[in-house]
Order: sequence, then structure tokens, then C-alpha cells
Amino acid sequence: MVLLDQLLANKNLQLIGCCKELNAAYAAEGYARANGCGAVITTNAQTLNGEHWAAKRVEDAYIVSIPDKSSLVEALNDFVIAQKIKAGQITGVGASNEAILRFFNPATKKYVDKTFAEQMEISNLSGNISEVDGKPKLHLHVTLGRRDYTALTGHLLDAKIRGAGEFFVYPIDAKVVKVKNEEVGLDFYDFED
Amino acid sequence: MVLLDQLLANKNLQLIGCCKELNAAYAAEGYARANGCGAVITTNAQTLNGEHWAAKRVEDAYIVSIPDKSSLVEALNDFVIAQKIKAGQITGVGASNEAILRFFNPATKKYVDKTFAEQMEISNLSGNISEVDGKPKLHLHVTLGRRDYTALTGHLLDAKIRGAGEFFVYPIDAKVVKVKNEEVGLDFYDFED
Amino acid sequence: MVLLDQLLANKNLQLIGCCKELNAAYAAEGYARANGCGAVITTNAQTLNGEHWAAKRVEDAYIVSIPDKSSLVEALNDFVIAQKIKAGQITGVGASNEAILRFFNPATKKYVDKTFAEQMEISNLSGNISEVDGKPKLHLHVTLGRRDYTALTGHLLDAKIRGAGEFFVYPIDAKVVKVKNEEVGLDFYDFED
Repeated sequence: MVLLDQLLANKNLQLIGCCKELNAAYAAEGYARANGCGAVITTNAQTLNGEHWAAKRVEDAYIVSIPDKSSLVEALNDFVIAQKIKAGQITGVGASNEAILRFFNPATKKYVDKTFAEQMEISNLSGNISEVDGKPKLHLHVTLGRRDYTALTGHLLDAKIRGAGEFFVYPIDAKVVKVKNEEVGLDFYDFED
Repeated sequence: MVLLDQLLANKNLQLIGCCKELNAAYAAEGYARANGCGAVITTNAQTLNGEHWAAKRVEDAYIVSIPDKSSLVEALNDFVIAQKIKAGQITGVGASNEAILRFFNPATKKYVDKTFAEQMEISNLSGNISEVDGKPKLHLHVTLGRRDYTALTGHLLDAKIRGAGEFFVYPIDAKVVKVKNEEVGLDFYDFED
Repeated sequence: MVLLDQLLANKNLQLIGCCKELNAAYAAEGYARANGCGAVITTNAQTLNGEHWAAKRVEDAYIVSIPDKSSLVEALNDFVIAQKIKAGQITGVGASNEAILRFFNPATKKYVDKTFAEQMEISNLSGNISEVDGKPKLHLHVTLGRRDYTALTGHLLDAKIRGAGEFFVYPIDAKVVKVKNEEVGLDFYDFED
């Protein structure tokens, strides 16, 4: 980081940011072929901090830590917006003392939400990020472990972390859109968009 | 795509397909060094359609959408055959109104299958693709969320999607074989094959 | 492999190992530019064997097979130590006839462990690898399917495989540290380390 500061202070050097090391390497090579000399500087991992989350970016993956007593879904939403992630996969584990699950019945098109306020393990969080109406949208399902080791599971509206919250986000570098299907009452992928 | 059509119509150009952008870049560079000039053209994502599925391929990952009222396992089987995927990992979420779970007891070598016909969230699908007797074979486990938010879970024989079906498939570019172990009565990985 | 033996026997050749094919390609190209000639030799997948596990490494992923009657967590610990994996993500499926789950309550800072000795499907294993006190540490959660297809789930202390054990490990090439938080009584990610 000290090196980076020195480089930025040198007016004869021009800094070009790239989103992947490989792109940076190619760009530098191309520049060198055209102009005689180029250089690449990379950090092997990048630490990021946001509203109720911290993350480490390594190549194309993010490890996301959501601290004790934070809202899981609020924090993940803040993370994907801050990192400009518009598509991808999410997985992870943790613990929560309050989770809101939503059950949707396509036959009646009715939602039933229920809040479980007790200490639970987040045994698995599974989901994805896509673009709905031009904005990033998380679709998250969760499996929770109760005190007696039985499970609660379903669509996750939100959960409060109590203990650790450890997630992996794998961004996908493409436009991935979901569009509301009025007949079923849900957002479906529309890959033609 | 219009550009691609024009290029295909030009008889002085030869189109060489590559399975990865990186390979394409190297191939073009090698061609250019040997012959003076080469070019790469890539699409950043590819939309695919099959029997009861649609998919978006981005670099080495596929987002697979299985529509309302389709068979999950039939559709995934059709997908892996159509895309010639012989090994890999699968994960995803969705909803189903009919799922067949199989319980296998190695002590008795007996299967017990049970069909659950009710609206359920697919909280997590986890599994893999390998080659058994020369054919791609899916091994899928599922966690399902009932109306009362409790869970059903186990080995998945099939499920009918009711609502959305959103999956990620990560192909592995190697021969990965499972061979039937007669003693246990199951297919086991055989990495020596 | 026969080719490799011949190459190793040739004293005019120097073998340089690289952890990624891409790195090898760049290194060989750089060597060739400087010295006139370089070559890359790769195997498209590597088979590995250890204490109660076998694995296939393909590019940056490992497929890990843990055989019938082995300890899942002991085997995975041996695997990550043998492969010098210090950070990453783990997922997978299988079956077990004995699992120890741990419930932790941050309010009381008390652990309650319970052993379930019955045949169960491992519907989903989710977790991560990080460095705690300089050593690799697995953090694993599991969802288990009982004979009646209901679920047991939570933090996994250990499980005995009975049937298959099929896991994917995705290493992350960076230092990822967790530090004990005395207030909560758990290890938390410390990305500043």
C-alpha cells in the first residue's frame, strides 16, 4: 500500500484499474508492445468494509462476514449494491436469534410470513442475485437448526445474526434479469433480456 | 449476432470455436504470430434453451431456470446431456408441489421411496454430476420447506417445480467416474479410472 | 506419466512446478522470450490419496471422496492439511450413521452436543476453511435426513460416513484469519489480519 502511494505520487505514471488480474496482465502486455514498457501491480486479496458487513475479495469470490446483531438481508443488500454486483450465487452458514420465513402458495398466490425468535444455527443459506426492474435483487432460502436440532426452512425475508455470519458470494459478470410472471405471481429468470 | 452473421458470410475468414475465452485469446495470438493477423470475438454470456429448461452460460458457470410445472430431475438430466456436461457441482433453490425422496439403508441395502404431494419451498438442492457406465449421472439431495416451515430432506428422485426453479451448475472439465460398489450397494467415486 | 518420467530423466531439462496452468503458461512464455525456448506440460486432473480420503483436483476445485465407515471431519481435516489449504469453501452430500451436532447459545455461552446414531442422508454439508491460531480450521454445518424424511441440522462436530461421502472443496488463495471474540465466545473473521 505504501508502494501504491509512491506510484500514485509519480506524475509520469498512469494508473489503470482492471477488475481482474488477468485483464490487467493483458492490458499491460498490450501497452508494453505498443509503447515499449508496461507494468502490473496486484494485491492478492482486497479487504472491504460496509454497513454491517466486512468482506475479503480474492480473485472472483467474496468472503462476507456479517457481525453479531446485524440484519443478514439488509447487510447482504448493502454489500451487493456497494460492490455493484448484479448477478451471482450466495451460500453460507452462521447463527441467528430471529428469522422471518415466507411461505408462498402459487395455487392461492398468498404469502404467509412467520417470525421465529429463538437462538438457531444457520445451517445453510442458498440463493442468488439478479436484476429486477433495474435493481439488484437477492433471492435467499435458508435452513435453520433449533435448540432440539430439528429444522425450520424456507424462503428468507430477513434474519438477525446472533453469533457469526459467514457467507460466500460468487459474482457473475453478465446481465441476469428476472421479470414478474403475473400468472404465477413470482419473478422468473428471463435470459432473453 | 449481426456482426457474427457478416463474419460467417466472409469466405476469407475462418471461424474456430473455443470453449473458453482464454483459450480463444491464446489461439488467436498464436495464429497471429504465425500468420501475421488473428482476431477474437466473444459474447459475454450465452443463452441456451432445451426440453423444460433455459440456461445462461457465463464463463464456466451455468444459471439454469426450470419453469413452473416441469420435472426438476428430468430437466436437469436433459440439460447436462444437451450441454455434454460429464462432471460438476449443482446447487440451487426453488419451489415444488410434488417430490419423491428415497431413503437408503446400507445395513439392509433397502430403498424406501416416498412421495410428498404438497406445496414446498426447495430450500436447498445440493449434488453432483459424474459418469456411471459411460453416461452422465446426477446425484441430488434436497431440503424442502413445508407450509408449517418444518423440513423434509434426503436423496431426491424427482420433484415437480411449482413456482420457480433456479439452479447453478459448475461443470468440471475432467473424467469423473463412479463405479457400483456391490458390498454397499451404491455408486462410489473411482478417481483412478 | 510415462512422458513425465522420461522428461525427469533428461538432465538438460529443468522442471518448474506451478500451482495453476495459467501461471505455468505465462512462466514458460517468459522463459521462451528470454531464452529462446520453453514448454508447458499439464495433466488435466490430478488424483490424490490420503488418510481416509481420495480426491481429484481439476483446475481450482477438489472433488473429495470419503469412504464408507470413515470419520467425515477427521478425513476433511487430514485433506486440508495434506493439501496445504488454508482458506476456502466446502459443500457436499453423503450419508452417515452417526453424527454429533453442537448447539451454541451466545446468550449463555454454553454448548450442548448431541449424538444421533441412526442411518441418515447428508442432505447438505456447508462450511468454510480459515486460519485460527496459525492452523487450518474447518467450520461445518450439516443438514441430515432421517428415515422418516424429517431433518436434523446444525453445527457439525463429526459424523461417520455410512454409504457415500461426496464433497467439493474450493480453495481460496489468500490468508483468511478468524480470531476468538471473547465477548461472544466464537471465532470471527478478521480480514485486517
